[in-house]
Amino acid sequence: MASDNQFSELVNEILSQCDQLAACTGHTGIIHRTFLSQPMLRAHALVEQWMQDAGMTVRKDAMGNIIGRKSSSRKNAPVLLMGSHLDTVPDAGKYDGILGVIMGIALAKLMAERDYPFHFDVIGFSDEEGVRFKMSYLGSLAVAGLFDLKNLEKTDSNGISMAGAIKNFGLNPEEVKQAAYDFSKVAGFIEFHIEQGPVLESENLPLGIVTGLVGQTRGRFTFRGLAAHAGTVPMNLRQDAFMGLSELAMFMEDLTRKNEGLLATVGMVNVKPGGSNVIPGEVYFSIDVRDGDQAVLDRATSEIIAAAQKIANRRNLEMVTENLEHQAVVTCNEPLMQNLQSAVEANGFPVRRLVSGAGHDLAILSKVTPSAMLFLRSPGGISHNPIESVLPQDVEAALKVGLTFLNNFALTP
Amino acid sequence: MASDNQFSELVNEILSQCDQLAACTGHTGIIHRTFLSQPMLRAHALVEQWMQDAGMTVRKDAMGNIIGRKSSSRKNAPVLLMGSHLDTVPDAGKYDGILGVIMGIALAKLMAERDYPFHFDVIGFSDEEGVRFKMSYLGSLAVAGLFDLKNLEKTDSNGISMAGAIKNFGLNPEEVKQAAYDFSKVAGFIEFHIEQGPVLESENLPLGIVTGLVGQTRGRFTFRGLAAHAGTVPMNLRQDAFMGLSELAMFMEDLTRKNEGLLATVGMVNVKPGGSNVIPGEVYFSIDVRDGDQAVLDRATSEIIAAAQKIANRRNLEMVTENLEHQAVVTCNEPLMQNLQSAVEANGFPVRRLVSGAGHDLAILSKVTPSAMLFLRSPGGISHNPIESVLPQDVEAALKVGLTFLNNFALTP
Repeated sequence: MASDNQFSELVNEILSQCDQLAACTGHTGIIHRTFLSQPMLRAHALVEQWMQDAGMTVRKDAMGNIIGRKSSSRKNAPVLLMGSHLDTVPDAGKYDGILGVIMGIALAKLMAERDYPFHFDVIGFSDEEGVRFKMSYLGSLAVAGLFDLKNLEKTDSNGISMAGAIKNFGLNPEEVKQAAYDFSKVAGFIEFHIEQGPVLESENLPLGIVTGLVGQTRGRFTFRGLAAHAGTVPMNLRQDAFMGLSELAMFMEDLTRKNEGLLATVGMVNVKPGGSNVIPGEVYFSIDVRDGDQAVLDRATSEIIAAAQKIANRRNLEMVTENLEHQAVVTCNEPLMQNLQSAVEANGFPVRRLVSGAGHDLAILSKVTPSAMLFLRSPGGISHNPIESVLPQDVEAALKVGLTFLNNFALTP
Repeated sequence: MASDNQFSELVNEILSQCDQLAACTGHTGIIHRTFLSQPMLRAHALVEQWMQDAGMTVRKDAMGNIIGRKSSSRKNAPVLLMGSHLDTVPDAGKYDGILGVIMGIALAKLMAERDYPFHFDVIGFSDEEGVRFKMSYLGSLAVAGLFDLKNLEKTDSNGISMAGAIKNFGLNPEEVKQAAYDFSKVAGFIEFHIEQGPVLESENLPLGIVTGLVGQTRGRFTFRGLAAHAGTVPMNLRQDAFMGLSELAMFMEDLTRKNEGLLATVGMVNVKPGGSNVIPGEVYFSIDVRDGDQAVLDRATSEIIAAAQKIANRRNLEMVTENLEHQAVVTCNEPLMQNLQSAVEANGFPVRRLVSGAGHDLAILSKVTPSAMLFLRSPGGISHNPIESVLPQDVEAALKVGLTFLNNFALTP
C-alpha cells in the first residue's frame, strides 16, 4: 500500500509534469498545442519518457494517440483503458485533458508493485478540442473504431490534409483503422478530468462522479422586424426584433427554473442596425440548450422553438432558423460509477454525482465500452483560460480514489 | 381666393422643386447635403430664384440661412416666421425639412394678391441634422439668438472650422450674432414637416397638429458579469450580463404599456464575448426613453434606472452608466395650435393632435417665440431613407390649411 508520503510526492510530480507539458506550445507566452503539431511532438517525447519510467510499454497509433501499457501476466487479460487528451484550445490552461493522462501514468506507477488481472492502458488522445481540423474527438474516434476515413482529406488553415499531417508526424495514415481496439477484449474506459465548472467548488467538494454528458441543442436564428425611428413609431406599431429576443431569453430562463439541471444560454447576439435611436430591425442570435436527461432536453427544445415562433408571430417578426443541431445525452456505466463511488467513500470523501455540461473523450468511448468519469474541483469554475487550476489536495484525493478503484476493479469477475 | 386648379398646379411645382433640390447632392446616387457645402450653394441658388418668383425679397444671414420675405405695407408690422431646414442626413429622402421650406414659398405665392398685416418670412435653415459639425440646429440657433460663438471653432472631418466654412460660403462669421431676430417684433413661428412616423397613416389621416416635441432620456450602460462555459455553469451560479439586459428590456416595454405614449427603446446592443457556447460576460447597450409629458418622462426614467440597478444587483452584475443625457419636452403654443386646428376643420379634414417623437427646428424657435407645427402623413412611416415620400393630396391639404391659417392669423389682434 502506498504511503501518504508517496502520494504527496506523486502529486508534486503530476503538477510538475503538467507544467512541463504547458511549455510545449506553438505560441510563446500562451498554451496552444494542436493535433500532431511540433509542440505535440515534444509533448510526446516527455510523456513517452514518463510512461517508461512508470514501467509501461509505449506505442503510438496512426492517429497520433500515445498509449502506455502496464501489462498483466494473466493469459487473455482484458484491457482497462484510462485516458484523456493532450491537445489544447488556444490560450489554454495546463490541466484540461492533460491532467487525466498524467494521473493515469501516476496510477500505473502506484500499480507497479502488483500484477493486476487486466492490462492497464493509459491513452493520451491526440485531439479532442478539434482546433486544427475543426473536427473534435479525432483521437478517441480512431481508438473507438468510429473514425470515418473520408475525414483524412480535411485540410487545416494552411491547406495541409489530415493524412498529410499524420505523415509529417512520422505516422502512416493508411494504418488509422488499426488504431481501433478490439472492444471484445476491453473491460471499460475511465477518464479523470477537471470539472471546468463551479459546482464542486460551490459545495466545497474535492471530487464528483460523472453520471453522463449532457445532450445539447444548438441553433442559430434570426428575428427580422423593421428598423425605424425610436422617436416616431408608437410601441404598438413596432416590429422590434430585439424585444422578440429579450422575451425569448426570459422564456428560456423561466423554463430552466421549472426544470432543475436544464441549461439554456443565448451567447451570441448581433443587433442591427444598432443605432441608439433606431428600433432594432434584425437580431441574429444563438441558443444553446443542455440537459443530462434526453427526454427533458427534447421537451425543452420543442418548447423553446415553439415559444420563439409564437413570439415572432405575435410581434410581427419573421423567424429564420439557420441551423439546428442535436447532440444526444451520454450516460455513464452504472457498475463503473458504483465502483468509483465505493472508492470515493472508502477514502472518506463525500459522494456527489453530477452531470458534465462539457464534452469529453468519454462521449466517444462510451459508445463502444462501459465508461465512467471522475471530476476534480475547478477553482473558480474556470477553464479554457490560462488561470485554470487544480488543488494539490484534490489531485491527491483523486489518486487515492483511482488506486482504490483499480484495486476493486481487479476483484470484479 | 385660390382655385382648386391653382392648388394642384402648386402641388406639382412643390414636388418638382423637392426633386430639383434632391439633385443638389455631394454624392452621386444618394441625397447628401450638409451645412454650407457646395451642394447647399446650388440649393440656395434655386431657392433664391423661387423666392423671388413668389414676390419675396431674399437675404442670407451669416450662418447660411436663406430668408425670403413677403413684406407687409403696414407700419411696424410684426413678422411671422415659417421655416424648416435645407440640409439632409446622408442617404436622405427628398422631403425631410425641405418640404417645409418649399411649402412656405408656395404659401407666399398664394398670399401675393393680398397685403397682410404682418411680414411673412420663410427661412431655409442651413443645418438641423448636425451632420457636418456633429452639432444640430446650427441654423435655428443663430436665428433664435441662442448660438454660442465658441462653436465657430468646431472643426469638421476635414479639419475646416465652422468659421472657415462660413467664410468659404462667402459669408462673414463675425456677423453670426446679427442673424438673430428681434423677437419683440416676431409674432410666432410655424413649421410644416412630414411626420417621419406611421401614426397618421395608420389612422388614415392626411394631417396632424403637433402638440410639442417629446422629451428624451438617452443613456449608454454596461452590465458586467462573468463569461463562462454554457455547459458547465448551473443557472443559479451564472452572472449572465445578457439576461440582465433582456429583463430590463422587458421591464421597459411593460412600463410603456402602463403609460400611453411613452416610448422606450434598446437600440444598440453589444454582447461579449459572443460565442454561442459562452455565457455573456458583458453587454454594452443604449436606452432611449421619450414622452411628450415631462413628468411622465422623468418618472419613467427614474423607474428604468432603478430597475436596471435592481436587476444588476439581483443578478450579481456590475452596472456602469457611461452617459445619461436629458432633453426637455417642448410644448407648442396653444393659441397657434387652435388657429391651425380651426384651419384644418375649415378645410374639412379630421383633427388629430399628436406629439412629435423626432427633433425639429421648432425645438429651438419655441424657446423664443410662440410656435406651432403641422405634420403631413408619411407613407410607410418612412424617413431618413431614399424611399421617404409624401402624397400629393396631403401636400394640397396642407397648402389649403396653411393659407386658411395665414388668413385667420391676419385677423388676430
